[in-house]
Amino acid sequence: MTESYFASIAPIEFEGAASENPLAYRYYDKNRVVLGKRMEDHLRMAVCYWHTFCSEGADMFGPGTFHRPWHIGPMDQAHAEHKLNEAFEFFTRLGLPFFCFHDTDVMAEAHTIREHVDNLARIGDRIQEKMAATGVKLLWGTANLFSHPRYMAGAASNPDPDVFRFAATQVRHCMDLTKRLGGQNYVLWGGREGYDSLLNTDLKQEKAQLGRFLKMVIEHKHKIGFSGTILIEPKPHEPTKHQYDFDVETVYSFLVANGLEKEVKLNIEANHATLAGHSFEHEIATAVALGVFGSIDMNRGDPQNGWDTDQFPNDVREITTALYYILLGGGFTTGGNNFDAKVRRQSFEPADLFYAHVGAVDTVAQGLINAAAMIEGGQLAGIVKERYAGWQGELGRAILDGKMSLEALSDGAVAEGITPRPRSGRQEMIENLVGRYL
Amino acid sequence: MTESYFASIAPIEFEGAASENPLAYRYYDKNRVVLGKRMEDHLRMAVCYWHTFCSEGADMFGPGTFHRPWHIGPMDQAHAEHKLNEAFEFFTRLGLPFFCFHDTDVMAEAHTIREHVDNLARIGDRIQEKMAATGVKLLWGTANLFSHPRYMAGAASNPDPDVFRFAATQVRHCMDLTKRLGGQNYVLWGGREGYDSLLNTDLKQEKAQLGRFLKMVIEHKHKIGFSGTILIEPKPHEPTKHQYDFDVETVYSFLVANGLEKEVKLNIEANHATLAGHSFEHEIATAVALGVFGSIDMNRGDPQNGWDTDQFPNDVREITTALYYILLGGGFTTGGNNFDAKVRRQSFEPADLFYAHVGAVDTVAQGLINAAAMIEGGQLAGIVKERYAGWQGELGRAILDGKMSLEALSDGAVAEGITPRPRSGRQEMIENLVGRYL
Amino acid sequence: MTESYFASIAPIEFEGAASENPLAYRYYDKNRVVLGKRMEDHLRMAVCYWHTFCSEGADMFGPGTFHRPWHIGPMDQAHAEHKLNEAFEFFTRLGLPFFCFHDTDVMAEAHTIREHVDNLARIGDRIQEKMAATGVKLLWGTANLFSHPRYMAGAASNPDPDVFRFAATQVRHCMDLTKRLGGQNYVLWGGREGYDSLLNTDLKQEKAQLGRFLKMVIEHKHKIGFSGTILIEPKPHEPTKHQYDFDVETVYSFLVANGLEKEVKLNIEANHATLAGHSFEHEIATAVALGVFGSIDMNRGDPQNGWDTDQFPNDVREITTALYYILLGGGFTTGGNNFDAKVRRQSFEPADLFYAHVGAVDTVAQGLINAAAMIEGGQLAGIVKERYAGWQGELGRAILDGKMSLEALSDGAVAEGITPRPRSGRQEMIENLVGRYL
Amino acid sequence: MTESYFASIAPIEFEGAASENPLAYRYYDKNRVVLGKRMEDHLRMAVCYWHTFCSEGADMFGPGTFHRPWHIGPMDQAHAEHKLNEAFEFFTRLGLPFFCFHDTDVMAEAHTIREHVDNLARIGDRIQEKMAATGVKLLWGTANLFSHPRYMAGAASNPDPDVFRFAATQVRHCMDLTKRLGGQNYVLWGGREGYDSLLNTDLKQEKAQLGRFLKMVIEHKHKIGFSGTILIEPKPHEPTKHQYDFDVETVYSFLVANGLEKEVKLNIEANHATLAGHSFEHEIATAVALGVFGSIDMNRGDPQNGWDTDQFPNDVREITTALYYILLGGGFTTGGNNFDAKVRRQSFEPADLFYAHVGAVDTVAQGLINAAAMIEGGQLAGIVKERYAGWQGELGRAILDGKMSLEALSDGAVAEGITPRPRSGRQEMIENLVGRYL
Repeated sequence: MTESYFASIAPIEFEGAASENPLAYRYYDKNRVVLGKRMEDHLRMAVCYWHTFCSEGADMFGPGTFHRPWHIGPMDQAHAEHKLNEAFEFFTRLGLPFFCFHDTDVMAEAHTIREHVDNLARIGDRIQEKMAATGVKLLWGTANLFSHPRYMAGAASNPDPDVFRFAATQVRHCMDLTKRLGGQNYVLWGGREGYDSLLNTDLKQEKAQLGRFLKMVIEHKHKIGFSGTILIEPKPHEPTKHQYDFDVETVYSFLVANGLEKEVKLNIEANHATLAGHSFEHEIATAVALGVFGSIDMNRGDPQNGWDTDQFPNDVREITTALYYILLGGGFTTGGNNFDAKVRRQSFEPADLFYAHVGAVDTVAQGLINAAAMIEGGQLAGIVKERYAGWQGELGRAILDGKMSLEALSDGAVAEGITPRPRSGRQEMIENLVGRYL
Repeated sequence: MTESYFASIAPIEFEGAASENPLAYRYYDKNRVVLGKRMEDHLRMAVCYWHTFCSEGADMFGPGTFHRPWHIGPMDQAHAEHKLNEAFEFFTRLGLPFFCFHDTDVMAEAHTIREHVDNLARIGDRIQEKMAATGVKLLWGTANLFSHPRYMAGAASNPDPDVFRFAATQVRHCMDLTKRLGGQNYVLWGGREGYDSLLNTDLKQEKAQLGRFLKMVIEHKHKIGFSGTILIEPKPHEPTKHQYDFDVETVYSFLVANGLEKEVKLNIEANHATLAGHSFEHEIATAVALGVFGSIDMNRGDPQNGWDTDQFPNDVREITTALYYILLGGGFTTGGNNFDAKVRRQSFEPADLFYAHVGAVDTVAQGLINAAAMIEGGQLAGIVKERYAGWQGELGRAILDGKMSLEALSDGAVAEGITPRPRSGRQEMIENLVGRYL
Repeated sequence: MTESYFASIAPIEFEGAASENPLAYRYYDKNRVVLGKRMEDHLRMAVCYWHTFCSEGADMFGPGTFHRPWHIGPMDQAHAEHKLNEAFEFFTRLGLPFFCFHDTDVMAEAHTIREHVDNLARIGDRIQEKMAATGVKLLWGTANLFSHPRYMAGAASNPDPDVFRFAATQVRHCMDLTKRLGGQNYVLWGGREGYDSLLNTDLKQEKAQLGRFLKMVIEHKHKIGFSGTILIEPKPHEPTKHQYDFDVETVYSFLVANGLEKEVKLNIEANHATLAGHSFEHEIATAVALGVFGSIDMNRGDPQNGWDTDQFPNDVREITTALYYILLGGGFTTGGNNFDAKVRRQSFEPADLFYAHVGAVDTVAQGLINAAAMIEGGQLAGIVKERYAGWQGELGRAILDGKMSLEALSDGAVAEGITPRPRSGRQEMIENLVGRYL
Repeated sequence: MTESYFASIAPIEFEGAASENPLAYRYYDKNRVVLGKRMEDHLRMAVCYWHTFCSEGADMFGPGTFHRPWHIGPMDQAHAEHKLNEAFEFFTRLGLPFFCFHDTDVMAEAHTIREHVDNLARIGDRIQEKMAATGVKLLWGTANLFSHPRYMAGAASNPDPDVFRFAATQVRHCMDLTKRLGGQNYVLWGGREGYDSLLNTDLKQEKAQLGRFLKMVIEHKHKIGFSGTILIEPKPHEPTKHQYDFDVETVYSFLVANGLEKEVKLNIEANHATLAGHSFEHEIATAVALGVFGSIDMNRGDPQNGWDTDQFPNDVREITTALYYILLGGGFTTGGNNFDAKVRRQSFEPADLFYAHVGAVDTVAQGLINAAAMIEGGQLAGIVKERYAGWQGELGRAILDGKMSLEALSDGAVAEGITPRPRSGRQEMIENLVGRYL
């Protein structure tokens, strides 16, 4: 066998904050115990297969610049296995515990539905061997229901039931494989479940189709005994003008309307949050409050650009607050941090993939250390608790427990002649307080 | 009594499209029958009290420029009545059937909670007299729970239960007055129900408070026998960084989580839709599909500015598609079109208020005529119906009726070797088709 | 020879507004005289080669859906000629007078710099024959300096002088060909003249390179006696994070700093204007005021999406005001309206290309008819003129002519005790006035 | 005299990074020498008068919440002096060397043009005394040409020459006072120099007025011997739909067109940069490259909200890169960092003003320490220099020196058969490198 594409890169080791080695971890010490748990177990970081091994560096204005060796020629079984070998070369050098994939990322290209099933099964065996040999685990699998032209008008929400059937076939076999590989979650991202034009769209019909599709997925999960979590990943738009899974609240609305809010959790992506007009931490805190927080697609967008740039995270402040809310919600269970991020088109060398991941891993590790300190310090939680203390009083509890009518409350307030006392929100002081932990 | 501020403006009459009179209607002929109903009854247009009579033309960079006579001096009972008289002078000249108000728009300024109740009751009598004398009706009332400093950290979602109580008092008395005046709806807009900083906020607690508040409102509605509709108006942010009633789906999520989706409908504002990253027609079509469409705050934003500009609508294409989806959903029942729009700060003369409304009314009337023709033409609906025809087949129905498992569907698809046939979405042709109706 | 891809489409004819034929013009009657000039001569509409014949319907989330016959196999000379033949089949059926191209749109793919020069020259002969045979003319040519991986870090602004040289070679030969074909303009769009990260960029150096490149282009124009106009097309970003030719003012700044403001004009694209935070008409009016208005890339963006959607225009109001400012500025000289627009990915059939262009051509034609009526009506111009009438007075002229010092002006104002009289801006009335012309 | 509003706050002292005192500096040690200069002299930080002492905490949806004592009653001379006393109480406790003001911030409200001149002169004497007594200096003065209703349609760009005269009067006297107080700069922010509607606007006329106004300002500067810098502050919009001073490049375009690019520099505000679609560091680096960098309005916006939030900076990464580019450009000369930032509406207590400033001052101080280390480390500059090294070669220099024609360059490239060598842009590695300095 030829030398690995990544042969020149030594395994990435933890060297501490003082290290000047750009290919070492300065903060990610996987065995360091934070809030009673090893960093690796807290953060459950994963490499994504698509951006890291499938992307060729194309954008809408030009073709690929990466020229990875496994992309020279058709994506047949041999090339798929070449890519797989290199993926595990990368995983093991990087030292993260997990990876994630779409069915079409890993398999040889299929030209018929039968080939799809067969090619996925065939590469599944190879993946299983690689995982066994290396100890790398699967955070989640997913089916790509948006790239093939058959999905140009959606998958489960397609006007054509045959497309729904093709999507069902992909999902069924990808769920089966995910289970076989010990995957801890299964993700649905509705890349084209939405519309390009409302004018040719029957919104209600499409959402009914989506609802039925999701129920079939849940039924299948139980049937095959998959013990992982089903996750939906919101995104507001792109490639579609409008996507049905716009943001956390929209997905929750859909789940509740279909009675599935106990069966499904959310995979939240930083860049999708910001494209929807929310902060990353808002989407996390909302999912935690609704009881549907599941996992993270860790990346960042560009605050001046209006599309999904999927950049590697490097903003410690943003990651710290994101992890703070995750920790407040109890941390990850089956979920984790998947780096749904891609190197820039000019960063075409093997080393760039490592620089990007090393920086991101360290940013997340620093964020964890900071967020844990914030939790341990307790000031922030204390301020919030104290701010709402009035609701722990007798009247507050009576209101929330439904024991007061509008009339009674109103009459009492007028009789008392209440004049609520203003109180500073202390936003700047609190922001400074967070700054102390960075 | 002195001459009306609007004395120089004659009542606005319908003169037909050829009229060159800038103070006549060219399209709004209230008795014209469209789709079997009088235009007036279809459109149910309303003047808003706040922008039209309360605004002084201030913005964040300068004080008022309007200098309406009723704003000279303190807003006591005499000034409130002066304003009320002028409001009805305006309504009757404009010839629209409805108006809308916040409690604080109409009443003398109150310095205590008792004064609030009394001042509102006092002006209520005057409003009732004016309505009886003119035949102008109330589309909806609402309580202003965001302007007074007591609400700086929210009303029902405030950390202080006393603020919740004050809000409850305002809403109770405003609902009672709305009922007394024959109001057809009661609206809740959560202007500061949200947060400026997530860091000092307990999201889950605040949403629980909001849920309880809404339930009290519904209980009160039934208790007093108010037969109108309770409406929530979504907005994503401004003045807060983030508002809980972000958009239609978010409000629906909240309603379903609180079991209130049959009790509450939505008041959709064009400019709020676009601030949330949606088209106006998207929000309407979504509300219709979810069964919660209620009423419209008719205005427009500026596509290049990122705040709520509340401009008068003048884009016939946008209004046509908006009304098309409203008509498809069965049209207005208790709701209508409230012009939540303000004249620009430089448009400080009485005539400007008329120019603005006349143009907007005509835009909406033209939109109705166009949308009705689109419905009568039937091509667009036909295209959509035909596009989803496959779902009317045996397999399509079996899928939607829950008779197929993922496995069965998948096995069948592979056995058949399905290859879905691509089909043009015909977006450009359909857009041209809409253009024919403008 | 095989039948044309467009064989099923009959030539598009003008049939008048009442026509229900979706493949006829309802407003574009090329010989109709508007403001003393034939519509065709006013509008100078052009089909773009890239979106219409080169795009395969790919987006960032999936490959092409169009499957045009000339894309099956490598883009060698035979395929390039096949594409060329079909392009002229399209042009002649559509009946527009012009087309536009990038060098790489029309030629066989080149693998060396020598091949680039040769392949372009070879297809140039074929283009010349086709133009002679059909009478279709060239509005402008341009070199594609952004798609090939060599340009990933820019062309003229590249850190590597060899890339600058390659770009110079492409531009020189493309200018020569444009001249040979009687092209009326030559366009520069700096697709990657900008940066992905400021951190690795020497802004000042890159702009100096750009300045020198542009001067070489101007020198070459004069050397070869090209009588057309050199045009720069602004865009704020995408694919780069930031592009140097951000908007009209930024390009003007660059031109003046390089002393080229008399040598170069601007090609303004609607969707680029809105991505830069401007209205389309703002960019046009600004270019007219600065004396650098040249040509239009006619399309539209999606107001809810943050990337360049390049959709066909269908908003008559927007086009009317755009053309109003163009007409006010004297209309097109060498420039025209190039449809830099692409059919949606789901619109993959030959007919969709026609639907899209027919609708767009008619929108522009309607816009011209409306804008001409606005000019002839004269009310809008009259209002504006009257609004600034004060500046025609003695003092106004003295100020503008530089005859007053700050001190003198100030002392005079205080002595007079001036109190400027407020005056309504009449924005709503004026917007209504525009509405009358639609 | 009564006790100061700020009596409870002790002077803010430097206590070091370990301090847990929320009212102490942890990084701002004014005498610490960084890159050979005292921190205080590097950063030249200033408190702004308007947000800090004039704001009452109103927003578009509610009146003030701050209730500062000096705002109770009319803003007459006594109240203006009360405010002034408190401002200096604040300055001296905070320990920053500078402040900034608008004329109308400091003076008693004027009802005539004569009163304007007199009231400004009167408070000028008091300011002079305070400055002498405390040693606090004036970074810059400016005239408020946007709040008064007379400016609703602009100041220098107003359709009415009398408004231009009033503006000229304000600027003349404010410049004179700025000189008298030893101000180091004079700023022009064209708050309403733009338009609300293009339809009623003569763009060319308005820009000619603006050009003449600016020339008068420059002439007056020289006449009175003011040795400070004239600064223009760009902003894209708000309150206007479009402001003429959109961004750095647009202002530069205007300066060059008026021959004033040597006479005027720019005051760049972080939140204005982002509203214009640029990063803060982009605007700084662009101004440095164009030779017009002057001063900073230091604040931040909210990445999810589309208006000017003017928040206190707390993002060390953003400030570090901003200061890095400022230092690369040679640092401040007459300019400095003015905190054009306001406490949130809920932060109404005296202490909140201190928390906000202390956090911001420390953020800027940390940024300086980091940026200086980046300069001293030299890696980043080294990477950039090496990236463009090719341009130092013979051919590179010949191109930039104008010694090569397009033809010669092209012929040489073809003859050589050049194939530019791709090279990684190393963006992720460089971003990691910056992260090391935070």
